[in-house]
Amino acid sequence: MSVGRLEAFSDGVLAVVITILVLELKVESGAPLGEQLSRQWPVWLAYVVSFVIVGVIWVQHHALFALASRVDRPVLYVNLVLLFAVSLVPFTASSVGAFLRGDRADARLAVQLYGASMELMAVAFTVILWLLLSRGALAVDVPRERAHAALRRFGVGIAVYPALMLVAFLSPVAALLGYAVVVVLYAAERTPVAARAEVSRG
Amino acid sequence: MSVGRLEAFSDGVLAVVITILVLELKVESGAPLGEQLSRQWPVWLAYVVSFVIVGVIWVQHHALFALASRVDRPVLYVNLVLLFAVSLVPFTASSVGAFLRGDRADARLAVQLYGASMELMAVAFTVILWLLLSRGALAVDVPRERAHAALRRFGVGIAVYPALMLVAFLSPVAALLGYAVVVVLYAAERTPVAARAEVSRG
Amino acid sequence: MSVGRLEAFSDGVLAVVITILVLELKVESGAPLGEQLSRQWPVWLAYVVSFVIVGVIWVQHHALFALASRVDRPVLYVNLVLLFAVSLVPFTASSVGAFLRGDRADARLAVQLYGASMELMAVAFTVILWLLLSRGALAVDVPRERAHAALRRFGVGIAVYPALMLVAFLSPVAALLGYAVVVVLYAAERTPVAARAEVSRG
Amino acid sequence: MSVGRLEAFSDGVLAVVITILVLELKVESGAPLGEQLSRQWPVWLAYVVSFVIVGVIWVQHHALFALASRVDRPVLYVNLVLLFAVSLVPFTASSVGAFLRGDRADARLAVQLYGASMELMAVAFTVILWLLLSRGALAVDVPRERAHAALRRFGVGIAVYPALMLVAFLSPVAALLGYAVVVVLYAAERTPVAARAEVSRG
Repeated sequence: MSVGRLEAFSDGVLAVVITILVLELKVESGAPLGEQLSRQWPVWLAYVVSFVIVGVIWVQHHALFALASRVDRPVLYVNLVLLFAVSLVPFTASSVGAFLRGDRADARLAVQLYGASMELMAVAFTVILWLLLSRGALAVDVPRERAHAALRRFGVGIAVYPALMLVAFLSPVAALLGYAVVVVLYAAERTPVAARAEVSRG
Repeated sequence: MSVGRLEAFSDGVLAVVITILVLELKVESGAPLGEQLSRQWPVWLAYVVSFVIVGVIWVQHHALFALASRVDRPVLYVNLVLLFAVSLVPFTASSVGAFLRGDRADARLAVQLYGASMELMAVAFTVILWLLLSRGALAVDVPRERAHAALRRFGVGIAVYPALMLVAFLSPVAALLGYAVVVVLYAAERTPVAARAEVSRG
Repeated sequence: MSVGRLEAFSDGVLAVVITILVLELKVESGAPLGEQLSRQWPVWLAYVVSFVIVGVIWVQHHALFALASRVDRPVLYVNLVLLFAVSLVPFTASSVGAFLRGDRADARLAVQLYGASMELMAVAFTVILWLLLSRGALAVDVPRERAHAALRRFGVGIAVYPALMLVAFLSPVAALLGYAVVVVLYAAERTPVAARAEVSRG
Repeated sequence: MSVGRLEAFSDGVLAVVITILVLELKVESGAPLGEQLSRQWPVWLAYVVSFVIVGVIWVQHHALFALASRVDRPVLYVNLVLLFAVSLVPFTASSVGAFLRGDRADARLAVQLYGASMELMAVAFTVILWLLLSRGALAVDVPRERAHAALRRFGVGIAVYPALMLVAFLSPVAALLGYAVVVVLYAAERTPVAARAEVSRG
């Protein structure tokens, strides 16, 4: 099947997710605006972190499927799993916004739920890359060792989120920022597959 | 008219529907997070079932229109009927989430309304396939008997949802899961038309 | 500028509008589901009428821009006016749903506001067609008299909505249904320009 | 990377933003409709101003990327910053709607927050243009002095919004209208780069 429509649908979901995050930001006439804003810092923190994460995921998604020459049904379904995890972000961000300043156990649970959706994204991304590599469905030729290196790198992500979910026992805020840092590091350090493709398309 | 813009608009509607489902998931500071989540299992069940259903419908829609060489106004309008049924899902999912744990009669009605929207989707899909077949608007050549088999298969779906709506008298949860199972089976077992097209496009 | 991106953005807006209409449909645990649904008939009526109207507008938009070979800034801006009118529909539909069963004066006002947004759409459509015709920006050759006939037809729409807004003084429901009927008649009776283009593109 | 998918994602975000603005317009049965509408003039003012601004930004975005022959990661990320600023508009518009009629200090702060998001958009637009110019990633040949003139012009925007944020100390409404006027002036007076591209593409 065509890569184009998978990208169009994914773009749609990612665009809606990244945009409806803003619905969590709410102020009401009745109390001074400045006061409301400063009281809501956890909501804003969750908003910014989530915007960065979904934005980077869109870039990574773009980079991954720019490599694909075709997709079959398993790829479509794993991509749906990825979109499922992403579409949970408005909810997990909302939970973090509501509970980060509250009871410790609640704050931890909210941040761990957030981490669970990140983990699901990392797994789905890795499976998609593996499917594309193992079927030779890439538009560029990737040497075996590079393909393995790329998979290994994605695999690291799968281990990092559970570790950050443990960090949430110590500091929920640190764990939350950790998710964003990991995503940004991924974004900065392109996988060798992606780098190669960018060079070859230059 | 061009298939491309029908797909773009449908992708948009399906992407918005699948993403705004998450707006039903709500927690509030005030009560412990874990408690709220476990009390809300019907909302989560409705969310996951609906995400799976809309996701599979997108894949089927993709597979169906990948076959079409062109579309005329009747196809556009029946596609709007399909999108109407899909766009009801956030409402029917919300009803199920609100009533599944409540009074038996309410739970049954909510699940049957859900089934009614599924039935409308099945009818619309079948009519679209019939329109494409009867006008010879397919990009691939489909032998007469295969076309009939594909239509018959879609027709089975039309009979299955009313049956599951009757099952809701015994167990609303079973009927709800039944909708998802039917949709997933459809997804696994491609219609002969789709299978042929995938082969011929490699 | 390219017609493609105008269509992509318009498809996005129309897809979001047609999908968020559903957010008006709300039920809550607490009261019997059946009772809530039957009490909410004005909300459902507004929903169905609005879905039909936005759906048909998408088809008309599709048909209109399928003719355009290029668009310039004035067309982009008038298209934004059209999208502005369409994006008011979730609000006007919500007003109608809230007031149709209430005080007569409120019901009338709600339906007239709805009509005002329809009127703005009709004007914008006519101006776009006129801009495309007068600049020779059509992909097909349209004889002068046909172009005039098409413009005159669109012009009729501009007169019909104010008339229906007067009907709202007698019966708000009749006026509301009238909007949908007019839109559907437009859809059935393609403009000569569109008909010609469809023939010439096969 | 391809310009197409950047445009598709941006179109999605802009389409969702411009459409969910309408969710701020709310009336409820209980009080007369006309009274509610006239009391809500700040909400309507914020709605219309925001619709105009986001609409013009879409046109400008369209014009800017129609020039780009390719985009690299820095452009993707700065575009995400632009989309971040735009996606704040439903919130800043909502704040303005809630506080414009209220306490002077709150009204000023709300309008200044609105201005801050405009400023961020202006900066992001300028950086994108600078990145495209400095990498020679434009589809048309732009003479050095024209490129500088275009950048200078965008730079003016960066200075204007802070000035308008100061005007908010005197009159929040005037500052708000000022944002819209600046955006519309930008739209009317195409940058020389854009003008040249339009000519060359005819």
